[in-house]
Amino acid sequence: MITHAATATFDRVALDCGTTLENVDIAYETYGELNSAKSNAILTLHAFSGDAHAAGEGGWWEKMIGPGKAFDTDRYFVICSNVLGGCRGSTGPGSINPKTGCPWGMRFPAVTIADMVRLQKMLIDSLGISRLLAVAGGSMGGMQALEWAVSYPDQVAAALPIAATARHSAQQIAFNEVGRQAIMADPDWNHGDYYSGRPPARGLAVARMIGHITYMSDESMRQKFGRRLRAPDQFEVESYLQYRGSRFVDRFDANSYIYITRAMDSFDLTERGALSSLFDGIKTRFLVISFTSDWLYPSYQSQEIVSALRSRNCDVAYCNLESHYGHDAFLVEAEEQTALIRGFLTSTHA
Amino acid sequence: MITHAATATFDRVALDCGTTLENVDIAYETYGELNSAKSNAILTLHAFSGDAHAAGEGGWWEKMIGPGKAFDTDRYFVICSNVLGGCRGSTGPGSINPKTGCPWGMRFPAVTIADMVRLQKMLIDSLGISRLLAVAGGSMGGMQALEWAVSYPDQVAAALPIAATARHSAQQIAFNEVGRQAIMADPDWNHGDYYSGRPPARGLAVARMIGHITYMSDESMRQKFGRRLRAPDQFEVESYLQYRGSRFVDRFDANSYIYITRAMDSFDLTERGALSSLFDGIKTRFLVISFTSDWLYPSYQSQEIVSALRSRNCDVAYCNLESHYGHDAFLVEAEEQTALIRGFLTSTHA
Repeated sequence: MITHAATATFDRVALDCGTTLENVDIAYETYGELNSAKSNAILTLHAFSGDAHAAGEGGWWEKMIGPGKAFDTDRYFVICSNVLGGCRGSTGPGSINPKTGCPWGMRFPAVTIADMVRLQKMLIDSLGISRLLAVAGGSMGGMQALEWAVSYPDQVAAALPIAATARHSAQQIAFNEVGRQAIMADPDWNHGDYYSGRPPARGLAVARMIGHITYMSDESMRQKFGRRLRAPDQFEVESYLQYRGSRFVDRFDANSYIYITRAMDSFDLTERGALSSLFDGIKTRFLVISFTSDWLYPSYQSQEIVSALRSRNCDVAYCNLESHYGHDAFLVEAEEQTALIRGFLTSTHA
Repeated sequence: MITHAATATFDRVALDCGTTLENVDIAYETYGELNSAKSNAILTLHAFSGDAHAAGEGGWWEKMIGPGKAFDTDRYFVICSNVLGGCRGSTGPGSINPKTGCPWGMRFPAVTIADMVRLQKMLIDSLGISRLLAVAGGSMGGMQALEWAVSYPDQVAAALPIAATARHSAQQIAFNEVGRQAIMADPDWNHGDYYSGRPPARGLAVARMIGHITYMSDESMRQKFGRRLRAPDQFEVESYLQYRGSRFVDRFDANSYIYITRAMDSFDLTERGALSSLFDGIKTRFLVISFTSDWLYPSYQSQEIVSALRSRNCDVAYCNLESHYGHDAFLVEAEEQTALIRGFLTSTHA
């Protein structure tokens, strides 16, 4: 599999909040080869804590992207970029504000899912690709896939929103808010200005622990941990969460946590009109996937999208896959997703 | 309704951990009058953050205890005490260690649900009551009701475990652990020694916010908050959680949070044998109640208890009440609970 890692820089990008951000980096990787017609490009879109490294060792969608896999790099040119506001090579609150020479911190402008997609569109244009064969992602990646289809319907032959929603519910906002509050309660956060000192590691760890619980299911936690003890007075699930929380700070910036979760919470396609009206006349094909045990992005949220698409006679396939892995299923359940996605992509033509 | 508030003090109580605690206070309230046969006493048992003030203005089960209510104080003598390890008048980590003259802090011995019940039994004995008409409570209160029935079956005519479980699952432990970690991440916690300074208010607030989300349901949060804004960049659900979190510190001690959640997590009736074998020969009548939208103490946990009781031919009534209030339903859904409980108690005789 031919792999490239690169960073593109744009002079400016206009944001939904009204600000224009200058000197904007977008880190991305590509897998496979773009064909001469430039008609085999698939943009994969990462979830909240993901990055541009989607395939190959340690890639967040390693199970799904590669030769012979769901997103078959022998056939497709697969692209993945780090989102705007992130901390893995794309411009975000940890980047240097060119006007001050200091890190942005909480002075970074608010970003939206639509802003992330606007920058991705600039990247795709710069690669000379006028139309994507598909946009695909799980969780926040699925929200971006929906945004792509609604904002650039003529540039997207197919969209695959997986374990996603057209808008965050009060419960989804609430879990994100507790994570943000945990970070902001850490004195080391210092209102976001910690880049020359200690990061708010304890607050970020607590936020990550909450996240992990919501990504799993009651059943998958029972199977993985049950009530097994790690030490006489410590359950295995406790040490697992503590470990995962404490490690997160090594690869993630607390301010990006705040900015990206706010982008997710503010996402609401229905603010622009009834969901069905947004899909009016869209030629993009859809494959919508949800998972039975996903209680963070429950199946009814995917079914709302499917109903809206069907009401406008759009081309949509939907599957509510049986799984006990909870929200993590989009990362873990490779076999059934592969069968569905391979068949769907084979019948999709740019 | 005749109401009494009092504190009983015992010279010593033996704990499961092997320690004997001395000079132990238990704060309690009573409502109504004990009859001459002392056969109309009902012990109500509070949940994690409750206290002895169950009935009357601001009482945690105000809807359920009083004249003509489910626990009818015209007929029954209703008792409620603050749990051992608590911070509302009973001995806990914020109490003074008589041997040192200083607050216990994290040097307080570990307590269990069985320890809490052992102290309650001493209180009941001291009131001259040899047999309770009923023990009743929701959530951790339901766990205590189960413990009473298993440990003192001859002293309990009826048990009402509501929205409860015979053992915490990995997911329940995980949510409690994140709350503990949020408290311990707050520098003001100072390993539990904060009684002469500032309490870990920010950590405790984050812990409480997590709790609130788990007590509600996706649906009840949608109905109560939806995506309504409180300010241009703040959702109502965010300000609600922040407010409830920040207020909690006024009435709750962070170390009690740690001790009581650990008691809940360590509770596992099945450690003493198969659940059914524990109910062998028990004459206590049971009314088990769960709620359809309670995802923190899901109905299957109540159904495990019911199955075990039925397998031993125990007298058990079970109802999975339709509600969208989530775990909070046991506090909120007065009407249907009242009908069930009133009928059940009327046919119960000490």
